[in-house]
Amino acid sequence: MTDALVIFTPSGKRGRFALGTPVLTAARQLGVDLDSVCGGRGICSKCQITPGYGEFSKHGVTVSDGALSEWNSVEERYKSIRGLTEGRRLGCQAKVMGDVVIDVPPESQVHKQVIRKSATQRDIVMDPATRLLYVEVAEPDMHEPSGDFERLATALRDQWQVNGITADLALMRRLQPSLRKGDWKVTVAVHRGNHDAAPRILDIWPGFHDGGLYGLAIDLGSTTIAAHLCDLRDGAVLASAGLMNPQIRFGEDLMSRVSYVMMNPGGDVEMTCAVRGAINALAISIAAEANIAPTAIYEAVIVCNPVMHHLLLGIDPVELGQAPFALALSGSLSLDARELDMGAVNPSARVYILPCIAGHVGADCAAVALSEEPGKSKDMVLIVDVGTNAELLLGNETRVLACSSPTGPAFEGAQISSGQRAAPGAIERVEIDVVTKEPRFRVIGSDIWSNEAGFDAVTAITGITGICGSGIIEAVAEMRMAGLVDAKGLIGSAEQTGTARLIPEGRTHSYVLHDGSAAGGPKIMVTQGDIRAIQLAKSALYAGARLLMDAIGIDTVDRVVLAGAFGAHISPKHAMVLGMIPDAPLDKVTSAGNAAGTGARIALCSVAARNAIEATVGEIHKVETAIEPKFQEHFVNANAIPHATDPFPELAKIVTLPHVSFNTGGGGDGGRRRKRD
Amino acid sequence: MTDALVIFTPSGKRGRFALGTPVLTAARQLGVDLDSVCGGRGICSKCQITPGYGEFSKHGVTVSDGALSEWNSVEERYKSIRGLTEGRRLGCQAKVMGDVVIDVPPESQVHKQVIRKSATQRDIVMDPATRLLYVEVAEPDMHEPSGDFERLATALRDQWQVNGITADLALMRRLQPSLRKGDWKVTVAVHRGNHDAAPRILDIWPGFHDGGLYGLAIDLGSTTIAAHLCDLRDGAVLASAGLMNPQIRFGEDLMSRVSYVMMNPGGDVEMTCAVRGAINALAISIAAEANIAPTAIYEAVIVCNPVMHHLLLGIDPVELGQAPFALALSGSLSLDARELDMGAVNPSARVYILPCIAGHVGADCAAVALSEEPGKSKDMVLIVDVGTNAELLLGNETRVLACSSPTGPAFEGAQISSGQRAAPGAIERVEIDVVTKEPRFRVIGSDIWSNEAGFDAVTAITGITGICGSGIIEAVAEMRMAGLVDAKGLIGSAEQTGTARLIPEGRTHSYVLHDGSAAGGPKIMVTQGDIRAIQLAKSALYAGARLLMDAIGIDTVDRVVLAGAFGAHISPKHAMVLGMIPDAPLDKVTSAGNAAGTGARIALCSVAARNAIEATVGEIHKVETAIEPKFQEHFVNANAIPHATDPFPELAKIVTLPHVSFNTGGGGDGGRRRKRD
Repeated sequence: MTDALVIFTPSGKRGRFALGTPVLTAARQLGVDLDSVCGGRGICSKCQITPGYGEFSKHGVTVSDGALSEWNSVEERYKSIRGLTEGRRLGCQAKVMGDVVIDVPPESQVHKQVIRKSATQRDIVMDPATRLLYVEVAEPDMHEPSGDFERLATALRDQWQVNGITADLALMRRLQPSLRKGDWKVTVAVHRGNHDAAPRILDIWPGFHDGGLYGLAIDLGSTTIAAHLCDLRDGAVLASAGLMNPQIRFGEDLMSRVSYVMMNPGGDVEMTCAVRGAINALAISIAAEANIAPTAIYEAVIVCNPVMHHLLLGIDPVELGQAPFALALSGSLSLDARELDMGAVNPSARVYILPCIAGHVGADCAAVALSEEPGKSKDMVLIVDVGTNAELLLGNETRVLACSSPTGPAFEGAQISSGQRAAPGAIERVEIDVVTKEPRFRVIGSDIWSNEAGFDAVTAITGITGICGSGIIEAVAEMRMAGLVDAKGLIGSAEQTGTARLIPEGRTHSYVLHDGSAAGGPKIMVTQGDIRAIQLAKSALYAGARLLMDAIGIDTVDRVVLAGAFGAHISPKHAMVLGMIPDAPLDKVTSAGNAAGTGARIALCSVAARNAIEATVGEIHKVETAIEPKFQEHFVNANAIPHATDPFPELAKIVTLPHVSFNTGGGGDGGRRRKRD
Repeated sequence: MTDALVIFTPSGKRGRFALGTPVLTAARQLGVDLDSVCGGRGICSKCQITPGYGEFSKHGVTVSDGALSEWNSVEERYKSIRGLTEGRRLGCQAKVMGDVVIDVPPESQVHKQVIRKSATQRDIVMDPATRLLYVEVAEPDMHEPSGDFERLATALRDQWQVNGITADLALMRRLQPSLRKGDWKVTVAVHRGNHDAAPRILDIWPGFHDGGLYGLAIDLGSTTIAAHLCDLRDGAVLASAGLMNPQIRFGEDLMSRVSYVMMNPGGDVEMTCAVRGAINALAISIAAEANIAPTAIYEAVIVCNPVMHHLLLGIDPVELGQAPFALALSGSLSLDARELDMGAVNPSARVYILPCIAGHVGADCAAVALSEEPGKSKDMVLIVDVGTNAELLLGNETRVLACSSPTGPAFEGAQISSGQRAAPGAIERVEIDVVTKEPRFRVIGSDIWSNEAGFDAVTAITGITGICGSGIIEAVAEMRMAGLVDAKGLIGSAEQTGTARLIPEGRTHSYVLHDGSAAGGPKIMVTQGDIRAIQLAKSALYAGARLLMDAIGIDTVDRVVLAGAFGAHISPKHAMVLGMIPDAPLDKVTSAGNAAGTGARIALCSVAARNAIEATVGEIHKVETAIEPKFQEHFVNANAIPHATDPFPELAKIVTLPHVSFNTGGGGDGGRRRKRD
């Protein structure tokens, strides 16, 4: 026998190989997904495999004990120093000596799957743009003069099939010392170019290096900036962090910021500096949290709405503030991090920015589409990315539509009297007893309700500081359910409702959720103004959804996905009570968490995903809310907080809303019914 | 008749076209080189043509008066505003109405030839990387949202066949205002990417723009930095300027600078800053000289030796100071000007750096090869680029060899007692009467000899300040011819030679070329030390040439080309008397001027030339002088200043050198004869 049959699992790929062929070589020739950084030199141990020993014929092949060459000294040394699971071999050392079935464990695959916690969400298949490659470079020869870089390029071509490598001057500076220190063996971090762009060396280390290679997935929102720090080798999230967008001082919502630029020449530059500085600060703090050097961050993927997109890039967003809402550029971008003043990360780091869909529908919406894949849904799904500017996707595998809706920052706790961003001490869950009208609540960071033992101990540290976005949604919905607020959104008086928690404030009333003033804390209330702010926000959201439904010609959706930086925290029941979203079966209203951030993370981990979303955005049909007369109509009609007797069968199943009205005038059942009449 | 025959001259291209086809359209379809910036909209007037009117049949076609459509209002308007030569038509306006012969005048060709003054030098065919293109861009449409940039890209693709255009963020910033100011018509400066790189927009103007588009061809030498400012549209040289390389304060020759880095950590950074600052200053001054804005400079091509190459790029040159003289990178480079801190030129400007040939043979030598094309020579040509580091090319169409030789800065007037760089007031030409031993000389900036009327008036302004490189070569050669110096290079005494111009200085003698001390000026002398410095320099040069001749296996060359920043000023006769160059017929010793600078200029004007030299350098065989034992032998043997009785037939035809000897010891006939024995 001069050759043998080799079958790889789980791929099922098989082929005959000459006896003595290393398993790694066989895998490469068959295109089996078996990792290796050192290129088969017994250094990296990425190519671990599990041979099927003993006589068995699962795959129609008889495997005997001598099917692989004997355990060798390289493997022994590796095992003694770094450990090797029993039964594992190094694919580059073990040679084929007979018919054999070889299993490639998940951690030995380049394109490993990152298993995500929620079963409803799809997994990420690793296909990172940046990889570590170990190469042995030819030494210089006076008689055949060539540059060290050119010889490195040849080595990458011959040993890794990487053609046309490039490097920036900063890397060139470090090339010669690294090659000599590593005795002409180096590890390079190579970034695959996007599309036709040439691959580039981002970093170089003498000898074999298996150190950190990290990336940032950044969701740049109008109000908050959230980031995940991921290991580019396996997709693991090492840390997540967020901070307020410092542009808030120029205007709370996007249009205020556009106005600021119009009124203040150079205002865009101020805002560009502010947001770039914040991203840099975020990179530093998230790296500190994960205990890595910020310079170990080699890639960032950024998703954001169009105004943030332009301000980040240093482009005046003024055109986005007026019809026809022309983007300066809509395509995806691949940049040097330094072009965005990201001085904290690696000097050669690359940034990828997802494409925008339209002047009001940004790269963040593209990221949601990448994460939630409405275009692959069999049923009609409405995806609502709740933020200062809500972005909505509606569709199924036939067609996907998108629009944005100017909800304002109320859902994020801004413009709310006791509002605050989601942080420890903020009230995030609220229940109001329908009989006693007494509230109980929970604060971020604890599962204990305010009427349960141990609550005081929890809040002794954080205090009870305010209400965050999800808290105010629940508070308003609970007040409505408890009959403290009528369908028009008017808060009743203590007399009308029989609770002393309603106190007069000028000509309106407020509900005292928590009075911490005795202990020197704040008095946390829901005011009439708060209700109005939430009504405006939810009306905008609802009107956007209706507009998309009109465009497709449907009256109901099969399911609703709530997304957004705080989307995970919104209670579907309360969202429906409030009329934020169209009527849908309650068990069909799910939360996708920060889908834009997840989309950014997928793009960070996968070039294939970047290519896919670039193709997808071209197929999404955009609906421009700002010029659609029906939007205004839907908006007005959506102002009411629906009755259970309104034609919302799903809502009636959940709660029975009282028909209270605190307004002596007519029309108390709000706009929605009018719309339906 | 529905179509007609159109013949273009001088190309001879011909085809039949439907009646009514614009001449520009016909030219494009036939691939005729007819320029247009506006794309046929009657704006730019670049497409002027001369139709052949009247009955004639030169090309076998009968042309009648009605062969083109009538003179139209667009042409009339253009003529009245900007003028149009009689008989000329605009190719985009004149339509084919019958058989016609159409001449494309040289100025209407894209690939125009730049006629150079010297007939011995080849012409440059314009093929610039950067061109102005006028485009009409679709307006934004809310219902089909796309970025302004994407629509501009589509316009460039459809109107100019430019695919995959890119732009940096600085350009993106200016995109929207330009498009709107120009009512969706803009002119863009597009840089063709090198090789596979994507084309890039360097600048944008509202509407039609035919303003300046300039480039810098920079010859970055160890001692001097010289630049030509060229119009990228027609290759015209608008200004030429030079300045001293400020790195001189770190060491006069390359190896001193490498040593400086070795002794002073961070010294490379100092030198990088110094040279980048100088290039920036040169860009500013040359732009001022040509009365253009420095920001109208969109491209630069830089040629330099390997040490300067690395120091410019910010790469530590230490490896170039020791065997095996490994370059960090040898290939050509295409960079953003800002990567080289060229803040004065356009922010989007691009820089192209020619490839290096070897660790001692740089991009400047590649530029000389591009300019002089030894590989296309039928006879065996030696090209000597004289500088602080001389670079030599020897070969013909069969084979080309290259080496460098460390001549030091003596040929540039440095390390010479009365030496100075070439500037007004410097002695550049010297003659010494063989009988009287009296000198006469000329200074830079005047054709009047020192013994002629009017000389005092000339030097009254500049003074007589020193001797430049060509001056010292002539002075030493003339002293040898007048019998004041013997073959070994020893200066005689007044007694031995009979002239009081020889004065003792310690144990040696000096020749007083000019004594300006009475008028408060310097006493300009040629000392024994000066002779020794020139001997060392010329020996190195000669030894390099011999080494190349050995490698090819020849004893004589057919012709010699002297090049270098001051190469144009070296007298072939004196160079041969001195023994700088191998023996060759005097009429076969020519000057190519600053061939490296010319090569840089060719590369600036032609992408085809860049591609050609990149291919050529790979075929040049490199000889490393530093490790070749024969180099040292040739160097020692070349120390003498040859006798006419030496076997140098060509030299004997020019002058008869005296057999004087001022050394009482033996061996006075120098090394060369020894070599030949």
